[in-house]
Amino acid sequence: MAKRIAAFGEVMMRLQVPGYELLSQAGRLNFSFSGTGVNVASALARFGHTGCLVTTLPANAVGDAAAAYLRKLSLAPTFMMRGGNYVGMYFLENGFGARPSRVTYSNRLESSFNTAPEGTYDVEAIAKQVDVVHFCGITLAMNDTVRLHMKALAKAVKAHGGTVVFDCNYRPSLWGQDGYEKAKPHYEDMLHLADIVMMNEKDAMFVLGMNTGKETRMEQLTELIPAVAAQYGITVIAGTHRSINGDNTHSLLGFMYKNQTFFFSQKLTFSVYDRIGAGDAYTSGIVHGEASGFLPEKTVGFAAAAGMLAHTIAGDTPMSSESDILRAMTEAVGDVER
Amino acid sequence: MAKRIAAFGEVMMRLQVPGYELLSQAGRLNFSFSGTGVNVASALARFGHTGCLVTTLPANAVGDAAAAYLRKLSLAPTFMMRGGNYVGMYFLENGFGARPSRVTYSNRLESSFNTAPEGTYDVEAIAKQVDVVHFCGITLAMNDTVRLHMKALAKAVKAHGGTVVFDCNYRPSLWGQDGYEKAKPHYEDMLHLADIVMMNEKDAMFVLGMNTGKETRMEQLTELIPAVAAQYGITVIAGTHRSINGDNTHSLLGFMYKNQTFFFSQKLTFSVYDRIGAGDAYTSGIVHGEASGFLPEKTVGFAAAAGMLAHTIAGDTPMSSESDILRAMTEAVGDVER
Amino acid sequence: MAKRIAAFGEVMMRLQVPGYELLSQAGRLNFSFSGTGVNVASALARFGHTGCLVTTLPANAVGDAAAAYLRKLSLAPTFMMRGGNYVGMYFLENGFGARPSRVTYSNRLESSFNTAPEGTYDVEAIAKQVDVVHFCGITLAMNDTVRLHMKALAKAVKAHGGTVVFDCNYRPSLWGQDGYEKAKPHYEDMLHLADIVMMNEKDAMFVLGMNTGKETRMEQLTELIPAVAAQYGITVIAGTHRSINGDNTHSLLGFMYKNQTFFFSQKLTFSVYDRIGAGDAYTSGIVHGEASGFLPEKTVGFAAAAGMLAHTIAGDTPMSSESDILRAMTEAVGDVER
Amino acid sequence: MAKRIAAFGEVMMRLQVPGYELLSQAGRLNFSFSGTGVNVASALARFGHTGCLVTTLPANAVGDAAAAYLRKLSLAPTFMMRGGNYVGMYFLENGFGARPSRVTYSNRLESSFNTAPEGTYDVEAIAKQVDVVHFCGITLAMNDTVRLHMKALAKAVKAHGGTVVFDCNYRPSLWGQDGYEKAKPHYEDMLHLADIVMMNEKDAMFVLGMNTGKETRMEQLTELIPAVAAQYGITVIAGTHRSINGDNTHSLLGFMYKNQTFFFSQKLTFSVYDRIGAGDAYTSGIVHGEASGFLPEKTVGFAAAAGMLAHTIAGDTPMSSESDILRAMTEAVGDVER
Amino acid sequence: MAKRIAAFGEVMMRLQVPGYELLSQAGRLNFSFSGTGVNVASALARFGHTGCLVTTLPANAVGDAAAAYLRKLSLAPTFMMRGGNYVGMYFLENGFGARPSRVTYSNRLESSFNTAPEGTYDVEAIAKQVDVVHFCGITLAMNDTVRLHMKALAKAVKAHGGTVVFDCNYRPSLWGQDGYEKAKPHYEDMLHLADIVMMNEKDAMFVLGMNTGKETRMEQLTELIPAVAAQYGITVIAGTHRSINGDNTHSLLGFMYKNQTFFFSQKLTFSVYDRIGAGDAYTSGIVHGEASGFLPEKTVGFAAAAGMLAHTIAGDTPMSSESDILRAMTEAVGDVER
Amino acid sequence: MAKRIAAFGEVMMRLQVPGYELLSQAGRLNFSFSGTGVNVASALARFGHTGCLVTTLPANAVGDAAAAYLRKLSLAPTFMMRGGNYVGMYFLENGFGARPSRVTYSNRLESSFNTAPEGTYDVEAIAKQVDVVHFCGITLAMNDTVRLHMKALAKAVKAHGGTVVFDCNYRPSLWGQDGYEKAKPHYEDMLHLADIVMMNEKDAMFVLGMNTGKETRMEQLTELIPAVAAQYGITVIAGTHRSINGDNTHSLLGFMYKNQTFFFSQKLTFSVYDRIGAGDAYTSGIVHGEASGFLPEKTVGFAAAAGMLAHTIAGDTPMSSESDILRAMTEAVGDVER
Repeated sequence: MAKRIAAFGEVMMRLQVPGYELLSQAGRLNFSFSGTGVNVASALARFGHTGCLVTTLPANAVGDAAAAYLRKLSLAPTFMMRGGNYVGMYFLENGFGARPSRVTYSNRLESSFNTAPEGTYDVEAIAKQVDVVHFCGITLAMNDTVRLHMKALAKAVKAHGGTVVFDCNYRPSLWGQDGYEKAKPHYEDMLHLADIVMMNEKDAMFVLGMNTGKETRMEQLTELIPAVAAQYGITVIAGTHRSINGDNTHSLLGFMYKNQTFFFSQKLTFSVYDRIGAGDAYTSGIVHGEASGFLPEKTVGFAAAAGMLAHTIAGDTPMSSESDILRAMTEAVGDVER
Repeated sequence: MAKRIAAFGEVMMRLQVPGYELLSQAGRLNFSFSGTGVNVASALARFGHTGCLVTTLPANAVGDAAAAYLRKLSLAPTFMMRGGNYVGMYFLENGFGARPSRVTYSNRLESSFNTAPEGTYDVEAIAKQVDVVHFCGITLAMNDTVRLHMKALAKAVKAHGGTVVFDCNYRPSLWGQDGYEKAKPHYEDMLHLADIVMMNEKDAMFVLGMNTGKETRMEQLTELIPAVAAQYGITVIAGTHRSINGDNTHSLLGFMYKNQTFFFSQKLTFSVYDRIGAGDAYTSGIVHGEASGFLPEKTVGFAAAAGMLAHTIAGDTPMSSESDILRAMTEAVGDVER
Repeated sequence: MAKRIAAFGEVMMRLQVPGYELLSQAGRLNFSFSGTGVNVASALARFGHTGCLVTTLPANAVGDAAAAYLRKLSLAPTFMMRGGNYVGMYFLENGFGARPSRVTYSNRLESSFNTAPEGTYDVEAIAKQVDVVHFCGITLAMNDTVRLHMKALAKAVKAHGGTVVFDCNYRPSLWGQDGYEKAKPHYEDMLHLADIVMMNEKDAMFVLGMNTGKETRMEQLTELIPAVAAQYGITVIAGTHRSINGDNTHSLLGFMYKNQTFFFSQKLTFSVYDRIGAGDAYTSGIVHGEASGFLPEKTVGFAAAAGMLAHTIAGDTPMSSESDILRAMTEAVGDVER
Repeated sequence: MAKRIAAFGEVMMRLQVPGYELLSQAGRLNFSFSGTGVNVASALARFGHTGCLVTTLPANAVGDAAAAYLRKLSLAPTFMMRGGNYVGMYFLENGFGARPSRVTYSNRLESSFNTAPEGTYDVEAIAKQVDVVHFCGITLAMNDTVRLHMKALAKAVKAHGGTVVFDCNYRPSLWGQDGYEKAKPHYEDMLHLADIVMMNEKDAMFVLGMNTGKETRMEQLTELIPAVAAQYGITVIAGTHRSINGDNTHSLLGFMYKNQTFFFSQKLTFSVYDRIGAGDAYTSGIVHGEASGFLPEKTVGFAAAAGMLAHTIAGDTPMSSESDILRAMTEAVGDVER
Repeated sequence: MAKRIAAFGEVMMRLQVPGYELLSQAGRLNFSFSGTGVNVASALARFGHTGCLVTTLPANAVGDAAAAYLRKLSLAPTFMMRGGNYVGMYFLENGFGARPSRVTYSNRLESSFNTAPEGTYDVEAIAKQVDVVHFCGITLAMNDTVRLHMKALAKAVKAHGGTVVFDCNYRPSLWGQDGYEKAKPHYEDMLHLADIVMMNEKDAMFVLGMNTGKETRMEQLTELIPAVAAQYGITVIAGTHRSINGDNTHSLLGFMYKNQTFFFSQKLTFSVYDRIGAGDAYTSGIVHGEASGFLPEKTVGFAAAAGMLAHTIAGDTPMSSESDILRAMTEAVGDVER
Repeated sequence: MAKRIAAFGEVMMRLQVPGYELLSQAGRLNFSFSGTGVNVASALARFGHTGCLVTTLPANAVGDAAAAYLRKLSLAPTFMMRGGNYVGMYFLENGFGARPSRVTYSNRLESSFNTAPEGTYDVEAIAKQVDVVHFCGITLAMNDTVRLHMKALAKAVKAHGGTVVFDCNYRPSLWGQDGYEKAKPHYEDMLHLADIVMMNEKDAMFVLGMNTGKETRMEQLTELIPAVAAQYGITVIAGTHRSINGDNTHSLLGFMYKNQTFFFSQKLTFSVYDRIGAGDAYTSGIVHGEASGFLPEKTVGFAAAAGMLAHTIAGDTPMSSESDILRAMTEAVGDVER
């Protein structure tokens, strides 16, 4: 049954050097528009749900280009506001082998989204029209007004019986010095409101300050996640363990904790074309599984395969259909499809 | 000794999304013209033979572009007719790692080639001017008129003492429901006319309906191919076994059956840049070996190396010279050539 | 007051050689999706109305790309059906100076739109949800089933009190021999149903077979158009006179006949970047003026300026906003806007 | 005799949509780095002087790319500081004919240049190493700290016997409401310090608030400019009158006031490829003429031809050599040079 | 009646900066292969004759690319030799308006063509297989061995009853100091051998040292050309007068002198996209007219229209068909062809 | 402590087919300028030293483009002379997997650098302004005048107390038949002058004709290098052993012999994006380590990591900073940097 899904978040302009040159060698950029909310909501729209983004864009040529791009990604324009002057931007230089990819942010703090004043969003109206709302820890790091919008919308959706999804996604560079301390109360607010949470043991230890005597990631995970679920009353906690292999392939192991039980995907190993945004594909798989009533073991496998395929797609935003993902769950890599 | 070689077949326009975007993400396409006959005849021209294509192209800008492209590939324009309105087209989206490449055909059934009326080709004139003629199972799947052209030309070349090459190349999507049944009589007609046949055990079992109690591909092959050769009076039967490995490399094992004996290439394992058309490079290697009087063991090795190199070449059409292939048969991959 | 506007028509894939090379010199194409309905409905959406397209696209990668492109153009997916196998295509080679642009069509007759069976569109449902519906003479030329869809939809919208727009747009190459004769009854059907008609004196003379003793275009126009309006009961008839000047600029004079009165725009003279689709911009201006209650003299000036600006825009589809057009109506060409 | 020339100013990243698409139609951008100071100092370096830029760039990939670009333009890195986080950016959509070009700024107020703290530049050291320093009204509009840097550097250079060039270049959008009032005292400070000033009668009237009863631009110019020169003790005042013609060509008339006398260039009329930065080419011509001891009539002709050629060059920054410009002053447009 | 046409000449690699950047601003080049012989022979092949090039290319990747390009242009590979090491090259920067295009040659003196030793070409064999052979003054400027090849081939063709075409095409930079003196004896040799000569009054005055008291170009032309025809026994002399207009359009007036009579084309005025090679299109029109038995007035009009259209085509090599040219002779520039 | 570093050598224009097409399939090239000296001096400039190139470029558009490119690479223009007519060029076709990359040189023997006459370079002036000078065996292979420049400069720098670096870099194709014999005396001259030498056991055996009974590369190395150091009085000898693995990765083992002791890097294994110029990155690492007083074990590890990273960079010229290399020495390949 298709759900109405909103994501709250900033639209970023991605300015990518084509090929493998550095910015200082290049003269051209490919651009697209993305963001955690964009990625999750459009992936869910691709799975058959209705997706929209709650955000603010400037009323100029850059805002128009962003809005057009989001429509192309199937995001309904209903809750995209216009105001302010800028879209946040980042430059991406593709890595190769031993040389990692490099992201350089341009000023996002003055963006239309981050300067949208109180009252910009009619949270009651939104809450009435959506079944699920998605938030992310990157947004939480921005400023007090953004956090105000965020919590007000989460509360409104919860009050109307909707599902609140929160992806912890802690970015140290955004919170600055003493970041964990600053972040903790806001994370706790969101965790109390959330039904589905994306996180792993590191978030529990570093952001929430939880302790464990365990040494392996897996032991830490299985000890801490149930404690988090219990403490904040969270229905589903899901996440991944990623490892980067010597041959530049990545491995991904998905987990999902629900009804006092852990479910794990197979450990998938694959070549990477574009790593950015792949975590959002995993999130979209979890939300889709829950929204569609998949069994947890199917949900976590679907989410992991969605995450794997997102690494093979150009751009931040997942582009695989449900049937693409289901086939990737069952088949070996095949020959040309024709 | 250089031979005069003709191939009968359709020219397709390949519209390829550059890089790794999907068609729905892209705004540009690279185009080229290819087809089994194009690939085989031009590869043989590159080896020093004279190559031409028996086909029909429209008398418009698209037909002109196709003809120019074929001239560039060293195909003489002698037997390219002009008529009808369209060139068959296909869209290609490149896969990456876990995501397979995807081909979407546009309408080929109304193409100039597939609507060329009886009498379009002067088969007697062609037969007098060629030593070898090549046909393919894809063409056989088109329609009755095309099959008429095909069999008439094969008979004429045979009657004039030329060599007939037939590549089984059964494509299920082209024959539709009950395809094997529909296809069998036409395949049998061509096999009776052919001197050199490209096929493997699957064609024998599925298209010709032959039975075997053997379980491995190799056992099936060595049982069935001699039976086919005997039944249809075929001088040479050749083909490959392909496997796709976990790390996305492909492996290719070439075989050739001649004078009651099987000859096998080494099993070659290699990275793949562009898989389409690589089978035609293998065919060209077999035909070149036979035309040049190579020993069978050299022919099958040459064909397999030709096939391997074709996977490293942009586009459907093989571009390696005889010396490129001979070097690839003997040397490890080397450093930059300068 | 924003209207809900639907257009009925085929989506074409435009495959354009970049720059000024011929197809036979090039290896790359830029592609986009357009069509008279696409152009008119999206231009109206840009002016603040709600636009959608009643059409059929294939359920494959090409259809997905078309649908994404249309969403980007603000066309709601509500009445886009999926079925059939192909999208109509055309190749465009840009002319330069003394060398005209050249269009080569690929097969559109087998397209999803042109093979969509009876019953594909729920005309009653559509009629209930739209205020205005747009049709075009190109669509009328396709085949009987398409004409059936077309007339059924026009009748249903009319029956529900909506406005029917019909653009005569007679293309000789589509109707073939004795085209005017074949076309006339269908044109008459549509004219009887239409409220707003795009045509000029040539359509009256050639398609409708009307006679005039006048010799200048302007005299013919002013004699024949009122007769057409009277005979078919049409509220508004509008169109343009285009001339191509020696220095490759074009001139456009817009007219509009309403309430027994002719209104004319200024004669606009301008450089041309991309001529295709500019007529649809003019149509969109007339419809917008009528839908917005502009005075006729403003409507015809707005439409002519919209048409002029569409010649300066890349691609078939108009991209100017209402404010862009209003400014072009009043100001001389200015310096960089910054 | 080659001079050592510094310009003080911000480096902007120009993100240009290639061809004639709008940002909302495109997916690629060409980028370069420019700014009034960049343009003037590099043009003078091309004429054989030593050029450098006094500015601040971030110590990240964008700053590295800007620095590399400036080195390519022959600007010595001596006084380029590193600090802050951002480079100012603007998006450029090329106009065509009736559709003007459009510039959309991204946030420049938080750029490294505009946030560089007091004490960033060692004005004494700079003043000792340069013969001429160039400033611009755009920089003057930024903020108090920038103005502080600016005036301190101007004073230091003047104190060391150097020449101060000031280009009025008033941009209404940067000064906001009551802009003329806010700007006037700062403009007066700079005019008192300047030896060579780029301005015309509009600056005198609007920024300096001078009155005239004259009606034509030429009369206003010849009345007001001598008054400005006298009041502020300026040696040379130069500028242009630009007109945009109906056929999209531009006309440029250069003037120069020196020793109580006006000198005028021919009125040049020409096609425009890239208008941005052409005014800086004119400035560079005036400064080069003065620095090289040209007669005023040659200087003003040279500057006008430099300005004209800059309209035919891709990018903001003039690329013509002294010999290119001298030839353009004397010859008609010629055939291919080979 | 189709003729067999050979051209003797060097193949040059054209390395063109795309768009309007200078080489020092760019990072990419478009390349193609051309040359006077290439242009003339391929244009004639496009008109239905058989074209081939007598030349030498290196046996390496660059030579292979050149050979493939020439095949695409319909030039038969029969007389393309392989030897030496290099292909001559030139860089092209496109001018715009007041800024002329600029050609920079790379080393052509060591090219395969210019170092091909005596005996490279079997002139007897060539002479037997061609009806017409074309030479050009650029080739004549190279070195003694090239001149030897050239004259030997001209003599052989003449001896076998073929037609010799010679295009004077004097390039001062190739002959160096005292160029006219050095060139004259070689030009006289070629003129004595030639049946059709491309030249105008300037060649007569400067290369042949003829005197005239006339002042206008037209008077000089009509006095000198008949004298040249008489002195050297030339059947047809043809050429053009080109003028470059203030608005950057070019005008072309073609003339042809035959049977003691001058025939002139209309003076054509047109916009220029790519001027290089347009003179070769004119030559091809003259040769085609003579080869096809056109009346002289048609020939000169056809040649002038061929020349005009070649200015609208990307690259050096004419691409227009006979029907394109015939239409351009009769029709005004039209709307899109579809 | 930053050093002043000069390299003596030719600037080559690299013309690279983008992607994986062959030159005969392509129509576009990317170009850049490089050379051993360019690569080493600019890498050292990136590490904080002052770099310049002693070379000669033509005074035309190609020379201007080369000079601009070198400035961008931080090479000071001080000792770049202008003269002659050409820049040496090479074409690069990228290999893929089993198909090696291919380099085709255009004529370099007539380049400005290789034809610069005696007296072009003021070696005394250069020697006074540099601390280190770099030479390479490729340059040594050119001609007698180039060797004269080279040895004179080496002697002058040595006489002024500077450090002389010599990279043996023997290229068989440049020395031709009996190359080792011809080369040996010149190599000996340079080795007697050099303080730091890049070579391995093959150079000792083949160029210097030294004998060894050892069979493994490592044994040969450890026997021969100390002998070379002793015989020619060389302070540091360094080099690499490269192996190409079956999966197309390369492995690099760096060595450095100093103070009678061998130091080895770890054996690094990595994917290769662009192999050309990677040896120069290794050289730059050795020189930087020596110039900066690194311990030998750090120097050799730094050089090997610099070499490894250079394989991941587009173009011949290393682009990694000191901190990039230090991180690559210590960390595993990481995730996106942001």
